Amino acid sequence: VVHIDKASKEIPELGEDESYTLEVASNGAKLNAPTTLGALRGLQTFCQLVENTPSGFAVPAVSIQDSPRFPWRGLMIDVGRHFIPLDVLRRNLDGMEAVKLNVFHWHLSENQGFRIESKKLPKLHQLGSDGNFYTQAEVKDLIAYASDRGIRVVPEFDMPGHSTAWLAAYPEIGSGPGPYSVERNWGVMDPAMDPTKEETYKLLGTFIGEMAKLFPDKYFHIGGDEVNGKEWGRNPKVQEFIRSHDLKNNAGLQAYFSDRVSRIVSKNDKITVGWDEILQPSAPKTIVIQSWRGPASLAQAAKQGIHGILSAGYYIDLNHSAAEHYAADPLGDAAAALTPEEQKLVLGGEATMWSEFVSPENIDSRVWPRTAAIAERLWSPQNVTDVNSMYERMYVVSRELDWLGLTHNSGYAPMLRRIANSDDASKLKILADVVEPVKGYKREVLAATTPTSLAPLNRLVDASRPESETARRFGIAVDEYLAGTNKAQNEIELRRWLTIWRDNDAALQPLVSKSFLLVEVAPLSTQLSALAASGLDSLDYLSHGEHPADAWKAQQQGLMDQAKTPGHAQVLIMVAPAVQKLVEAAGR
Amino acid sequence: VVHIDKASKEIPELGEDESYTLEVASNGAKLNAPTTLGALRGLQTFCQLVENTPSGFAVPAVSIQDSPRFPWRGLMIDVGRHFIPLDVLRRNLDGMEAVKLNVFHWHLSENQGFRIESKKLPKLHQLGSDGNFYTQAEVKDLIAYASDRGIRVVPEFDMPGHSTAWLAAYPEIGSGPGPYSVERNWGVMDPAMDPTKEETYKLLGTFIGEMAKLFPDKYFHIGGDEVNGKEWGRNPKVQEFIRSHDLKNNAGLQAYFSDRVSRIVSKNDKITVGWDEILQPSAPKTIVIQSWRGPASLAQAAKQGIHGILSAGYYIDLNHSAAEHYAADPLGDAAAALTPEEQKLVLGGEATMWSEFVSPENIDSRVWPRTAAIAERLWSPQNVTDVNSMYERMYVVSRELDWLGLTHNSGYAPMLRRIANSDDASKLKILADVVEPVKGYKREVLAATTPTSLAPLNRLVDASRPESETARRFGIAVDEYLAGTNKAQNEIELRRWLTIWRDNDAALQPLVSKSFLLVEVAPLSTQLSALAASGLDSLDYLSHGEHPADAWKAQQQGLMDQAKTPGHAQVLIMVAPAVQKLVEAAGR
Repeated sequence: VVHIDKASKEIPELGEDESYTLEVASNGAKLNAPTTLGALRGLQTFCQLVENTPSGFAVPAVSIQDSPRFPWRGLMIDVGRHFIPLDVLRRNLDGMEAVKLNVFHWHLSENQGFRIESKKLPKLHQLGSDGNFYTQAEVKDLIAYASDRGIRVVPEFDMPGHSTAWLAAYPEIGSGPGPYSVERNWGVMDPAMDPTKEETYKLLGTFIGEMAKLFPDKYFHIGGDEVNGKEWGRNPKVQEFIRSHDLKNNAGLQAYFSDRVSRIVSKNDKITVGWDEILQPSAPKTIVIQSWRGPASLAQAAKQGIHGILSAGYYIDLNHSAAEHYAADPLGDAAAALTPEEQKLVLGGEATMWSEFVSPENIDSRVWPRTAAIAERLWSPQNVTDVNSMYERMYVVSRELDWLGLTHNSGYAPMLRRIANSDDASKLKILADVVEPVKGYKREVLAATTPTSLAPLNRLVDASRPESETARRFGIAVDEYLAGTNKAQNEIELRRWLTIWRDNDAALQPLVSKSFLLVEVAPLSTQLSALAASGLDSLDYLSHGEHPADAWKAQQQGLMDQAKTPGHAQVLIMVAPAVQKLVEAAGR
Repeated sequence: VVHIDKASKEIPELGEDESYTLEVASNGAKLNAPTTLGALRGLQTFCQLVENTPSGFAVPAVSIQDSPRFPWRGLMIDVGRHFIPLDVLRRNLDGMEAVKLNVFHWHLSENQGFRIESKKLPKLHQLGSDGNFYTQAEVKDLIAYASDRGIRVVPEFDMPGHSTAWLAAYPEIGSGPGPYSVERNWGVMDPAMDPTKEETYKLLGTFIGEMAKLFPDKYFHIGGDEVNGKEWGRNPKVQEFIRSHDLKNNAGLQAYFSDRVSRIVSKNDKITVGWDEILQPSAPKTIVIQSWRGPASLAQAAKQGIHGILSAGYYIDLNHSAAEHYAADPLGDAAAALTPEEQKLVLGGEATMWSEFVSPENIDSRVWPRTAAIAERLWSPQNVTDVNSMYERMYVVSRELDWLGLTHNSGYAPMLRRIANSDDASKLKILADVVEPVKGYKREVLAATTPTSLAPLNRLVDASRPESETARRFGIAVDEYLAGTNKAQNEIELRRWLTIWRDNDAALQPLVSKSFLLVEVAPLSTQLSALAASGLDSLDYLSHGEHPADAWKAQQQGLMDQAKTPGHAQVLIMVAPAVQKLVEAAGR
């Protein structure tokens, strides 16, 4: 029985009541919520409680009073660098609903693409998108789809930097001589809008006015990040403007620009959101800072009376572990020292799916299941921090997301089959299960050839998961074994794994002649085999109580060093650190 | 280099030129087509030719001149019995494009649901759909999506039978006393429109006029199948109308109705399509007959100068093998005897995905990959009939469809995990890989409780594939072994399979206590184990040249008989016939 006091707004708004109570007893289940939004959240909890039992589906008897810790719990998807089709966005909105996220931040413009139809300035999508953009009708549909799931849609149009696609359409608002064309490379680029021209604000006024009508949400994101200042520095008129307006430097010029654009946003009855860079001493109290730098920025903003959202720590594109994301807290570090009143200015956080290295085929595997851990951080009490328990739940949620149609798990096998060029990718999977893409921004650094937006994402690094569950479990088993916990059982388990990895290389190598995509994989396979042999040797020494010779130790050290140096394949063998622990224990 | 003589129409039409030539040589690839439609088809061929080689992707040197055998190559999806969301339809359109199908026949109304928004008669979707319908904007989008892929969209509104959902909205056009409500059960139902009331034609005129504008295709499907005549028989006014208009019987009344509706369709500048039943001696030459009965109907129609499309033989909901579908030919049987001129009236065929037992989760697995075999039948020359070669290609296409995002393969594991209630569904998979849902209409007959439109489709029968590739390969190996071909190698292979199946039951049974969805699976597993033991015994007898005792023979016969009697689980163990061959050979 669902009881709702009153309907929420048709389009959800920040700060609406999302609380609910759920009572399940042998005579039925009662869900009470002050709003339809609260009932939506409660229904998701109810779904999570459903269990398969010998006699049918069942829900345990529970009594739950629940409400979110933060009102802003978001997922940003960058559709600029790689265009992400609507079907993919919709299934990710389904996933967001399941984990009670409530903001879809739609990063719609980038150097590599301008992804929305503008009826007033049609050159933006015509010249800035390679034909891959959303029509306004499609945008309306997506907003309705999100609203039905209690999810706000906040659009972002990045300016004055990250704006090459804008300038490909309207070079007259650029700071450089042009001509501009849609960018194919990754990185922080020089093109920037010219904050000194009235024409710039006129065009932005037209555009923001149009978009403010299309997007019903009260918040409007203007980006503002990573202006490298090179075009401004090279443009004498811009430098003269800085001097004549007493703006001191490029940062001063950007503050001037942000202020002008914020006024346009306000005039359209919206609240400006921007990245750290728009936080200047002169910034108006009405803006919201989204921080890629960390809680210190949020603390600084709060002390100025300015709202903030945390994204540092939630950069899911960088292939860090769920545990690392789970540890990041919007009220952690410097923000922990804020007064309770100041803390209220911290609205929540957002996972950010930047899209240099994702396509419709693998994006789900970068978002899920790790974003479920971030969603829990933003919903649940701050003191819920048990990592092992989080992982246990995260993998249950991951299966539930499979049934919703998310492809983070189901997309894995087809990608491996393409790489293996065979219906049987089982040997490749043994290797792929224990590797992860390199972390942070190393992928670009390690590339054999500079990756571009046109490069196919069909390699092992694209198929392998951001976090290897096998490696995590192996690591736990090694730690337990070395600590003497369930020693015999863990030794059996470790030997089973290590034997599979050691022997897999001989089975995998003959396949390399069948697929060019395996060429870069072959040396990794050999490396894994050697590491596994090293682990097995270590277990032998440890179980016999024997001590290895120095030559053996030196040889193993070489293997470990090699494993820490990812090559052009741009993946890491994630069982290496645990094997190293075994080797060190054996050598002691 | 793509060369196109002229653009095809923006919305594809029946009979447009789809031919192309493709020349691939070491210095490049040339695709020439008289139309953009032909170029689309040629590009799909080019994509199919791409190979993974040790040095990169490559295309073999070929010289292809290609054009379709039939101009109407369709897939019908019934969205009435189970609503199928747009995302699912779109990915199936992607699949259709890949195999060069060119008609999406959208079966939009059924007893169980009226699935399209009518602005003129809004009660149709409001009262007839349980809220699951497509808006007109969504329909326009889907037509555009299909057109971009060279696919026509033909809507079907079934009448005068299969019309309970119509009558739930407008009982005044029904032949019975009502009240009507949306049907939850399966089968041929009594409700039928009243062909004797002018009100009926007035309402249909309004509706057809609205839909004729929405759907640009020249063809308009009015259903016409399976009127059981019970409501007409019980209604004295209807019977009196038959007498007074000299219509003889219900068939005469339906001919009268079809004629009236066809005139409305013609007035809207469309051509009427209907199922076999609308073919009456008095039928106008302008209609098109879609035959669920067989080529004889098409032959009969052609002799009356009437166009036809074959669907008998292509009922993919009935879980028959690809080989059976592949053998069905629109110009087979009685149609083979038609004159060349008459044969031209046979436009092609359509696979029909009736949706009693499909959901968004498993529909792809019922459509693909078998529909690829039907698509080939409709495109390629009649004399391309090698079944083994077809299977080889079909499984290659199946993998390509994975990469397009179809879920016929990727959806299998999540469904098995739900049934097993475990991350490790490997034991269940061993069984599931060798079973198929019962064939034809047996599922309803064998159900423990009458299945309805509200029953969840989460059982083994829903997850298992319409055609077991493992069973097919096992069958081939048995045939080869018994024929003495590669005898030793085949015996090893057969023993490997049989041993896995024999031993799997002991591993699977302990899992049954974890999931109520496994309860009906448990006896099947035991049956498979016994069959496998029987097969292994047979191989022993055969390899030792010994003869089994009569008691053994009788016992095995009991097992075989049991295997042919599917129970409430509604699946068949598909390796049973091949095991029976071994048993019989051993007993000889």
